[in-house]
Amino acid sequence: MQKSFEVLGSARDSKARRGRLTTARGIIDTPAFMPVGTQGSVKGVSPRELRELDAQIILGNTYHLFVRPGLDVIKHFGGLHKFMNWNGPILTDSGGYQIFSLSKLRKITEEGVEFQNHIDGARAFISPETAMEIQAALGGDIAMALDECIPYPCEYDYAAQSTEMTTRWARRCKEANVQRSTSNFDKSRAGAQLPTSETDSINSQLSTLNQLLFGIVQGGTFEDLRKQSAQAIVELDFDGYAIGGVSVGEPEEEMMRAVESAEPFLPKDKPRYAMGLGTPPQLLEMIARGMDMFDCVLPTRLARNGTAFTDTGTLNLKNAEFARDKRPIEENCVCPACRGFSRGYIRHLVKTEEILGLRLITLHNLRFYLELMNRARAEIERGTFDQFRKTFVADYKSEMQ
Amino acid sequence: MQKSFEVLGSARDSKARRGRLTTARGIIDTPAFMPVGTQGSVKGVSPRELRELDAQIILGNTYHLFVRPGLDVIKHFGGLHKFMNWNGPILTDSGGYQIFSLSKLRKITEEGVEFQNHIDGARAFISPETAMEIQAALGGDIAMALDECIPYPCEYDYAAQSTEMTTRWARRCKEANVQRSTSNFDKSRAGAQLPTSETDSINSQLSTLNQLLFGIVQGGTFEDLRKQSAQAIVELDFDGYAIGGVSVGEPEEEMMRAVESAEPFLPKDKPRYAMGLGTPPQLLEMIARGMDMFDCVLPTRLARNGTAFTDTGTLNLKNAEFARDKRPIEENCVCPACRGFSRGYIRHLVKTEEILGLRLITLHNLRFYLELMNRARAEIERGTFDQFRKTFVADYKSEMQ
Repeated sequence: MQKSFEVLGSARDSKARRGRLTTARGIIDTPAFMPVGTQGSVKGVSPRELRELDAQIILGNTYHLFVRPGLDVIKHFGGLHKFMNWNGPILTDSGGYQIFSLSKLRKITEEGVEFQNHIDGARAFISPETAMEIQAALGGDIAMALDECIPYPCEYDYAAQSTEMTTRWARRCKEANVQRSTSNFDKSRAGAQLPTSETDSINSQLSTLNQLLFGIVQGGTFEDLRKQSAQAIVELDFDGYAIGGVSVGEPEEEMMRAVESAEPFLPKDKPRYAMGLGTPPQLLEMIARGMDMFDCVLPTRLARNGTAFTDTGTLNLKNAEFARDKRPIEENCVCPACRGFSRGYIRHLVKTEEILGLRLITLHNLRFYLELMNRARAEIERGTFDQFRKTFVADYKSEMQ
Repeated sequence: MQKSFEVLGSARDSKARRGRLTTARGIIDTPAFMPVGTQGSVKGVSPRELRELDAQIILGNTYHLFVRPGLDVIKHFGGLHKFMNWNGPILTDSGGYQIFSLSKLRKITEEGVEFQNHIDGARAFISPETAMEIQAALGGDIAMALDECIPYPCEYDYAAQSTEMTTRWARRCKEANVQRSTSNFDKSRAGAQLPTSETDSINSQLSTLNQLLFGIVQGGTFEDLRKQSAQAIVELDFDGYAIGGVSVGEPEEEMMRAVESAEPFLPKDKPRYAMGLGTPPQLLEMIARGMDMFDCVLPTRLARNGTAFTDTGTLNLKNAEFARDKRPIEENCVCPACRGFSRGYIRHLVKTEEILGLRLITLHNLRFYLELMNRARAEIERGTFDQFRKTFVADYKSEMQ
């Protein structure tokens, strides 16, 4: 089998890597940022705008899509790509994180998780096997194994038992995926004789033949559990490895330590994905610690609150000081907001709750995150990443902290 | 002075006209629809999208902009065009309509209107002269005289007195505009020696030298008052004539009669603007009655509620029937929503309150209104407008009525 990931270069004075991940629907240059398309839409942004921002991959939240519009509907439309009109790569999460953070009355057993969704309270059950089935139906280019995201803080014993169960779940995910791929391959030969809707359905499943599967390292804030988890998950041989259970409320040092504890046990020739984080400095710190992929709702969520990212920190554009400011959000930024609009005008839009305001800030913030990855890649290639990271982190002042 | 309006052709069997209005910032083909940019933004839509929809002119609401961000701010940015990054024509209303419909504690006297705005309750006073000053500062390409919009229903005596006052206010608007244009012309010669902010301010005023001014016909639902008002306003010689006080809650027949009562007294060589309406069939009926220009919030407002316009009536995309509908909102429509997205996906976005949903429906609805005017112009040119209107009106079923 062809390798899906290549390391093209490494930093001299940190673990930062410049890589390239090849998926069924396109190449992802790493370090990479993945805009979050929670419910089949990156909030406030159209697929065309995402392409213009040079987003190479987006994330879809399995839990949200499972609840609304439901799998049947997405299957009917031939998978998530066709449904939302995005033909680039998509990574789907397993749904586990949202089950634990959003749903009601969840009950975790060795078999899987029973829960009531947060919208209409309907009961559902997700096992490692169904998590794989659901993601196959969504048809993303990268699927994630089902894990239990350990809360913070957490007792050692619970964390240890949970981490071991996550490993057992990961094995079941891997096995389920191998089985389905094999059986789909047989089915696909008959595809041409079936009516259109059937063929569509099989085409959607077919694409999962090329679906990469990432395993997730857990272990909470415990160094030995992170190490054990990494070793056990790596033994199962996934296409990539995620660090889960980070950015769940723990102090930043704990988050860094969790990644540092697991990273040495991850193979160098596979992509590493630090899940659900973070601020711009955190992303650079994670890159320096050997991480390749990121997803985070901060650029879109803060935009809806009037907050814009810049090299020197966040700006709250609601503030009166911007009312007469003719400058763009950030000088030299080439995003659609900065090319055409002043801080003063965007402030007016935010204050009057005009949708264009959050649209413009969202575009700027996504561009900022994507461009930060661009710069990180270039600095790694030039061998100057570590200096870049130090300068950036020192100059960046966040209002959020 | 060069004529700003040309009638290029007329329908054979109705009063429909095909015309062309030339303003300082571009040509407007009539019949024309003007998307409403209430607070310096057509709700949900970017200026680039408006250009791609071939909108030739948009409307700005003086009252809203006066309240937020305030005139000082817009002057500071060099006028409304620069503030909102729209370089095509803008028509500004006088602010009167919103003062009467939104503000609190308004007191109308011969001198003008004192009111408290609906946002922070600050008191302000607008006279015919200040309405002209404010619109000069906004720098729109077409300004509107200050009028009192008569409510429905209304006693004859009040309507008669109000209509006469509107005529006196119209005269004062006209005089104030002539005076300011003359004095600005002198000031502009010194512009080059002034500091930038001063020059900006004068440049903004300079553009008002080319600002067209439209008078507004009132008269409520009374035929004789509509006639008297039209005659008196026309005598003042404006660049165009609006029919105001329509679509304020009266039955549709009353609305048609109000326009029919005034129209015969409007000069054929000036544009006629039917204010604040209406449904697609109403627009065609108004065109058949000699109207050239329209503005209406329906396409943007209904979009935010999930309602889309089609040739056969409105669709409420929240309805369950659309959940699996793979068709675009309307077959053969070339708007960005119909080119890329299914009814089923848009329904999902609306149900999950994703902003992209209202964005897509807004684009479709604006395109629908603009395209309806395109078709009306072509049908008038071909001499087939009346048949087109009858067929369209007969086929159109509105959920709103």
